[in-house]
Amino acid sequence: MLVAGIDIGSMSTKAVIFNGQRLFKTIAPTGWSPRQAAHQVYGRLLNQSGYTEEQIDYLIATGYGRVSIDFADRVVTEITCHARGAAYLLPGTDLVIDIGGQDSKVIRINDEGQVLDFAMNDKCAAGTGRFLQVIANALGVDVSDLAALSKGQTPIALNSMCTVFAESEVIGLLTQGKAKGEIIAGLHQSIARRIASMAQRMGASNRVTFTGGVAINEGVQASLEEQLGVPVQVPKDCQLAGAIGAALIARDFNSRA
Amino acid sequence: MLVAGIDIGSMSTKAVIFNGQRLFKTIAPTGWSPRQAAHQVYGRLLNQSGYTEEQIDYLIATGYGRVSIDFADRVVTEITCHARGAAYLLPGTDLVIDIGGQDSKVIRINDEGQVLDFAMNDKCAAGTGRFLQVIANALGVDVSDLAALSKGQTPIALNSMCTVFAESEVIGLLTQGKAKGEIIAGLHQSIARRIASMAQRMGASNRVTFTGGVAINEGVQASLEEQLGVPVQVPKDCQLAGAIGAALIARDFNSRA
Ligand code: SF4
Repeated sequence: MLVAGIDIGSMSTKAVIFNGQRLFKTIAPTGWSPRQAAHQVYGRLLNQSGYTEEQIDYLIATGYGRVSIDFADRVVTEITCHARGAAYLLPGTDLVIDIGGQDSKVIRINDEGQVLDFAMNDKCAAGTGRFLQVIANALGVDVSDLAALSKGQTPIALNSMCTVFAESEVIGLLTQGKAKGEIIAGLHQSIARRIASMAQRMGASNRVTFTGGVAINEGVQASLEEQLGVPVQVPKDCQLAGAIGAALIARDFNSRA
Repeated sequence: MLVAGIDIGSMSTKAVIFNGQRLFKTIAPTGWSPRQAAHQVYGRLLNQSGYTEEQIDYLIATGYGRVSIDFADRVVTEITCHARGAAYLLPGTDLVIDIGGQDSKVIRINDEGQVLDFAMNDKCAAGTGRFLQVIANALGVDVSDLAALSKGQTPIALNSMCTVFAESEVIGLLTQGKAKGEIIAGLHQSIARRIASMAQRMGASNRVTFTGGVAINEGVQASLEEQLGVPVQVPKDCQLAGAIGAALIARDFNSRA
């Protein structure tokens, strides 16, 4: 059985094909058109896997851009897909923290990867990848360098929770001659605090899995561990949780059909 | 009796001297140093009024920078001063809406200008002058031109409440070729919605006074009237409510002493 999942996020589009043994995967920026991104990413994935569109038994789309694609067999909400994907990537997970480009979610799941409860933020840029992006830009560094730059640095606490006010605060700190690494360590602490308070509303857990684009940043991971007081695991394919979950749910649907 | 009030806001510093008959007033940007701004504005005001520092019987400081000034007889919170100032500027006011550069407040008052209840936002840039500033900047227009540019235009509703997300949304609208005037009308509607929901928590009113730097913008005033369904008055010295309130409270203190 050949199944596929595609997760069209605000920042990046991810797709996977699963043949029962092997996982083929592609990631690319979403850009302005989610539909175009979905076509391109899926096309590239098919090429890479050697399969044709007709061979795929079932395709599920998820993520914020899922409604704009026209070639999926079904669309499924991202909470459901992320939960299922995280349970597959790290079996035993009972709490999923996902920080994406423009949203963040905390999902409590059971051993089958089913959603028991969740909290989501897509209204406020603070607590999402966007916060890191805006501040990295103000600091004149690339978002992919944040973890390395802050490693071992003492965080300077940021007073402002709001992205806009934090940006001004950071510019003020730079003017005062503060070290970028210390400011970035403070930045990681700030986002971790916000997410930890969301997570704490979901109850205690010590099998936390951290997914989404921001999970690549080890500084945020370490800050989350500090805030939550428990280990926070980041799976190898942390960005693919949604797409993998979609493919696994596609397999279920196809088996039932 | 000669009394003075100084209101050190995040964006601008305002000071007044009141000699019982005439009001002398000055406004200047706060810049990086609230203390320096306070000294400069007050010095300029003294010059302009012809009085010396020694002649002033009582000086009260208010506003977010009030703690950093060292020459006031007393500091009083901005909620108290704004309430008192608004009641003086427009007697009969029972609800004060103040939108400043980095905060916004709604204050329910009695006929003496005393605070009965209030709500304040200084944590989120949306719903403050900062929101207008960020979006004006994205549109490449000056914040002082927003009202004129949007006059008579049909608002394009903004989906994002967050300043950061609204900024991206506006850039997207520009890319789609939407008219700036219509986007700005939507911007005014967006800030008015947020403030109206704060105001509604303070109960109904039909004697609403709108103060603060943003009150100069007639587009926001009109949108507030639409959202609240009642007239919204803007007094001539709308930016001075806090400083005037501080001077009036200074007069009370000095009379009692
Ligand atoms: S707090 Fe800041 S980042 Fe959050 S919604 Fe408000 S403006 Fe946006």
